Formats: sequence, structure tokens, C-alpha cells
Amino acid sequence: MSGVKTPVVGVVGGGQLARMMQQAAIGLGVPLRLLAEAADSSAAQVITDTVVGDYTDLATLAAWAEGCDVVTFDHEHVPAGHLERLAADGHQPRPGPGALAHAQDKAVMRRRLSALGIGCPRHAVVADPQAVADFVAAVGGFPVVLKATRGGYDGKAVWMVHDEMGVSRVLDEVPAGVALLAEEKVDFRRELSALAVRSPSGQQAAYPVVESVQRQGICVEVTAPAPDLDPDLARQAQRIAMRVAAELDVTGVLAVELFETPDGRVLVNELAMRPHNTGHWSIDGAVTSQFENHLRAVLDLPLGDPTARAPWSVMVNILGGSAPTLFDGYPHVQARDPRLRVHLYGKQVLPGRKVGHVTAYGDDLDDVRARARHAAAWFEGQPRQRLGLSRPQPD
Amino acid sequence: MSGVKTPVVGVVGGGQLARMMQQAAIGLGVPLRLLAEAADSSAAQVITDTVVGDYTDLATLAAWAEGCDVVTFDHEHVPAGHLERLAADGHQPRPGPGALAHAQDKAVMRRRLSALGIGCPRHAVVADPQAVADFVAAVGGFPVVLKATRGGYDGKAVWMVHDEMGVSRVLDEVPAGVALLAEEKVDFRRELSALAVRSPSGQQAAYPVVESVQRQGICVEVTAPAPDLDPDLARQAQRIAMRVAAELDVTGVLAVELFETPDGRVLVNELAMRPHNTGHWSIDGAVTSQFENHLRAVLDLPLGDPTARAPWSVMVNILGGSAPTLFDGYPHVQARDPRLRVHLYGKQVLPGRKVGHVTAYGDDLDDVRARARHAAAWFEGQPRQRLGLSRPQPD
Repeated sequence: MSGVKTPVVGVVGGGQLARMMQQAAIGLGVPLRLLAEAADSSAAQVITDTVVGDYTDLATLAAWAEGCDVVTFDHEHVPAGHLERLAADGHQPRPGPGALAHAQDKAVMRRRLSALGIGCPRHAVVADPQAVADFVAAVGGFPVVLKATRGGYDGKAVWMVHDEMGVSRVLDEVPAGVALLAEEKVDFRRELSALAVRSPSGQQAAYPVVESVQRQGICVEVTAPAPDLDPDLARQAQRIAMRVAAELDVTGVLAVELFETPDGRVLVNELAMRPHNTGHWSIDGAVTSQFENHLRAVLDLPLGDPTARAPWSVMVNILGGSAPTLFDGYPHVQARDPRLRVHLYGKQVLPGRKVGHVTAYGDDLDDVRARARHAAAWFEGQPRQRLGLSRPQPD
Repeated sequence: MSGVKTPVVGVVGGGQLARMMQQAAIGLGVPLRLLAEAADSSAAQVITDTVVGDYTDLATLAAWAEGCDVVTFDHEHVPAGHLERLAADGHQPRPGPGALAHAQDKAVMRRRLSALGIGCPRHAVVADPQAVADFVAAVGGFPVVLKATRGGYDGKAVWMVHDEMGVSRVLDEVPAGVALLAEEKVDFRRELSALAVRSPSGQQAAYPVVESVQRQGICVEVTAPAPDLDPDLARQAQRIAMRVAAELDVTGVLAVELFETPDGRVLVNELAMRPHNTGHWSIDGAVTSQFENHLRAVLDLPLGDPTARAPWSVMVNILGGSAPTLFDGYPHVQARDPRLRVHLYGKQVLPGRKVGHVTAYGDDLDDVRARARHAAAWFEGQPRQRLGLSRPQPD
């Protein structure tokens, strides 16, 4: 393009989030510049301006950022000091280090949310077995949840402990120097997620609140909007997301994962400051996808309409299973359901790894959910087990 | 991906059609391999596996194709002999040379459609002034349309001639060896377009018939579906597209541009065998875009549902105008209409060049059309003229 230069958006991290950002960036006509961990990573396959390098190496990160007008992220693992350096060099990390601290350190997040009066599970930073024992006593006994304050994702570095033996095992496992957070095990009805998008100038958009289902700490299914959610509670969840985004000065997508309690409250479980698995449905199910709105936000452009295009959308993750390849799943899945939307990430299929997702949308929730579940199970090569049938799949 | 290899789809031509194919390919998890005319061409910006080279050079084309499992096209200009060579080498050009001959040579196309009994404007291949004069007499006088049988696109190599002087000018302009086709000037109510998608195994899907508006031979606006179109005529147009696709053994998207006559017939104006400007609305307006269905077809995968997601979609092309850059148009356009879909092609802005398009969709056609027209005009920097207002835009 001629005239005023179109800004280059840097993305740190070559995972599927950066890959799906590229689909949106192509439409917007905005070039992405990627810093990827490997030349064959999911996003590096589809972004021409890619540097392969280690984002934890400051020199690598700073040199790469020279080619970017603004920098955003596929993950939250860039060290705070590195983010400060990017900011000092004028590369505008979005979100910035002040915001990202709350996604990088669960203790920092809990302190801040509690100070804001936002409902959280009871929690305490615990440095030794006695501190854990005190917390267990305070919440009325086991089980409790222990989390490393730093470095976790997708259920990693989170443990449900049922006795003192379990506590000892966790304390042995956690690296020296990583603090532990103890949290009460919340008796929840279900998990919800509220996504807000915020730009540097303070515009905000909130997506419909969704229901998510986790298995072994990994998001496996999302229903948009959350079925039978009390409208007041939905608004409350959206307001929490927008308030947290504003108070923490988040730029781009903020995902607030919530527990809905049986007595009709919501408690914040986790925060993520990037496009989020609970927003993938928006690619096919919303007017503006979370990926496009994330880019519009980091560029401080007006945000797009986040509302749903269909009464129901259900997204089911494809996890690496027994099928050796995903492409082979197409003939059956596409012939069976010509309206289904499939997204494959170009990743090697490893057991339990997120390698793609499917989205179905329509008027009838049961039908939409069954379509999405069937397709994901087919790609995984374990349709019978996933669908809850007992017989193993024939060879 | 492990196991059976995911096929690589080669695309000849680095224009916006290949660029938009890449958005669909990313979702499908299918790698594209591009042969582009320049390193900064629209598609080369977003496809990592790109070879820059001249597709008219057989050695270049054949060497590039070694890395492809199947080959498709951004344009129809690859010479027939080169396509035969790709086929002989096992690279599966889709569509193949037998089909593409009808998109490459308008005389071949007219002969074939006439043999099939499909309605066309009256026409004759004309080699000299006397042949033109005979044709003019046969159709009742000037004006008539003269077309180079080969090498035209976007209104290039098509002339409306009003007298013998005009005939002489065209005959002088056409390169030696290029035959001329004379066609009657059809008195049409409007122009329609019927898109069919066909796979090698013979599956077919037909998109809703759309109305297109051309200006100086360039498609500027498309309304899906064509307003007030007689349902029988719509079915007839879809059947023509599907019959032509089958008879000519087309693989991928076939666009049939049609004249709707005042007496309620449709006559075939042009054929295109690739994703087509009159199908761009499908990215945001249909369940499955023409780009995804084109890829599914060339891979012989089951085709996706081509139906519309909204009652009305209007696509307006952004042509290079007085605005020096397109990115500058975002703040106004996006703030004014958060539901609008914008697609910029990363091309240098040159007067009259297709540099992007916008799509609006919704329930009220007048509103949808006004939104799309306003946004395109704004990006062009000539909102007042484009909207039909008389005052020139202030500096």
C-alpha cells in the first residue's frame, strides 16, 4: 500500500493462536511478523515474515521487534523485564508488562482481584507444609487446589490434593523459587468464560458469555451462549471482564474463566490476555472473530461487533488421539455435515495435544452439540469412547 | 501432521484470489505452494512456500510443480501446452486443459455452448472488416461488441463499436494472430452470475444466483441473492452453471456470467474457471466460502454448504482512487459500521485497480447496500461521487 505505511504487528509465539490471527490479518490487509520457536510451528507455516528464535533471549527478541510497529502475543510467557525493554524501545507491547503480570503470576492476579472486590475462590500463598495445613484447616479440610504461581497452562502446574501425602508430592515437584498458591476447591455448577476486548484508547467490546467444559485441565467444549444462564449473571460476568480489562489496562482479548456456583454467583478462576480457546467459536459464530478484534484492539482501531450470528454455536477441540492423520477425517466429516466448520492447526498429532477444533452452529442446541462432538471424535479416531458409548472402536 | 501426507495444493498466480484461498487453506490445514509473478504480490505476502517465477516458462512451471500434489489457478492464462505437460507429469491441473480451453478462448467457448444448446448472444468469429460488416448486417446494425478471443479480463480486450471507424480502430489494436469475436449488443435488464463448484468425482454445489453491476468492464457491486429474480429463472441459471461444469469437466469454481433479458431469458456472457469476484460475498455471507469450496473441490473432498447465512449480502469492490492509503480508512469505516466486513488485498493503490472489497449483510437490502457502498467509497477517497452526489469531495 502506498501513502501512510500500514503498521506491522509483531506476534511472539508460533502456536495456533498466531496462526488464526493470520487469517484475520490477511483480511485486514495487515502484515504480521512472527517470532516462532521453530520453523515448522503452526503459525510459522503461514506467516512469511517469520524469525525463528528464542523469545527468552533478550537480544533475539529486541532485534526481531525492530521490524514491528506494535507487538502482541500468542502466549503470556515473555519475561516482564523483556516486555519493559520492548516498551522502552518504543515497540508498544500490547498488552503491556503491567497488565501481563496478572496473567503470568497467579498470586499477583489474586491479590489484585481481591483488592478490586471481585469474587475469587478463597486462597493463600503457601511457602511450606505448615502453611498448606493452615489453609486446609481454614477452608474446612481437603481437598484443596495447589497451583504454581507461574508457568502453568492447560492444566499444567495445577494439582488437586486430597491429603498430606499429596501436598508433599506437589512440594517436591515444584521447582525451587516458584511460589505456590493454595485455593479452595470450589463446588461449581459449571465453568463459564467471559471475553472482553479492549484497545489502548479504552474502547471495549464483550462477547456473549459461554459455557466451557474442561477435561484434565484442557478446554474440550464450548457452548455459546452459555445455556440457561441467568441474564443478570451473564451481565455480571461481562462487567467483571470489562472492569478487569480496564483496571489492569489490558490491550487485546482478555479471557476471564469463571466458576458458576450453585447459589448463583460467579468466581474468577483464571485470566488470559490473548485470544482464548473459549473464543474460537467466534470465528464462525460471531460477526467479528476474537482474532480480528484482538488485532483491531492492538492497532487501536474501532472494535467489531462481537455478537453471535446464530442462536447456538458449539466448539469442540480436536485432541491428538489414535488417528494417525487428520486429513483422512475429511471425507466422512464433510460429507456427513456440509455446514460444519473445521479448523486444523498443521501440528503433529501427539496424544492429548490440541491439533484443531470444529464449530457447528444452528437453531437447535442438541443437534448443534451432537454434530460438533461427532466430528471432533471422528478426527480423534475414538468416536465411540468420546460419544460415551462403551464398545471400543473396531480396528 | 503425521501418517498419510496432507496434500500440497499448488496455485499459479499471486493475485487476491490466491490470497483469499490462503485464508481458507489455513483453516483446512492444507499447505499452499504458490508460483507468483513477484515477491510482493498479493498472495506471496501471505504464503510461505512461494516461488517467484514466470508461469509462461515451461521449465519454471514444471520445476515448481514438482512440489505440488495438485495444481490450481488464480487466473486462466497458463498456456494449454504447459497444462498438458503438468498433467503428463502427474501434477493434476484442476481445472484441466480441456476445461480451461473454454475460459481461455471465447470462440471455443461460444462454439461449445452453442453446440450444447445453451443460450448465448448471437456471435461470429470475424477475420476482416468485411466479416464484421456481414455480422453487423445480420444483427440489424451497430452497435456490436468485438472481443479478442484470447487474453482479456476485467473488460480488457472488449470493445463496444458504434460504426465502421470503431471497427477499424479495434482491428488495428488487436495483435496479429489473435482472432476476433463479434457479438450482438444484448439489450439486458441486468447482469447475473451463477457459481457452481465441481469436484473431479462429479459432486456439485451451486451458490445462490447473484446480481452484478459492472463499470467499464469491472465488477463493482454484487447483491446476493439477485433481488426479485424469478425462482424459475434462478434455477435455470444454476442448472446452466452445473451443466456447463459437467459437460466441460470443470474442477473447482465455475462462474457463469449471464445477461437477464427483458423477456425473461438468460444468455451466457462469460465463463471463468476459478474463484470469481461475483463470489466474494460468500466469505462472510455463505456457510462455505467459494475459496474453501474451490480447495475442497480440487482435493476431491466433499463440498461445503453454499447457502447464504443472511437474507441479503452486498459486496462492493474497492477500486484504487484518490486516497493514498487504505489503512487510513479504517477508523471511520469501522466506527461507523461495526458489522461491516473489510478485505484489503495488500496491493499498491493504483487508479481503478481492485485493491479490496467490503461486504455487508443483513435483513434490509437498502440498508445493506448503503452500508457497503459508503464504506467502499470512503476507502476510495471519493465518497461523494461514488454515492451519486454532485459536489466534489473537499480537499
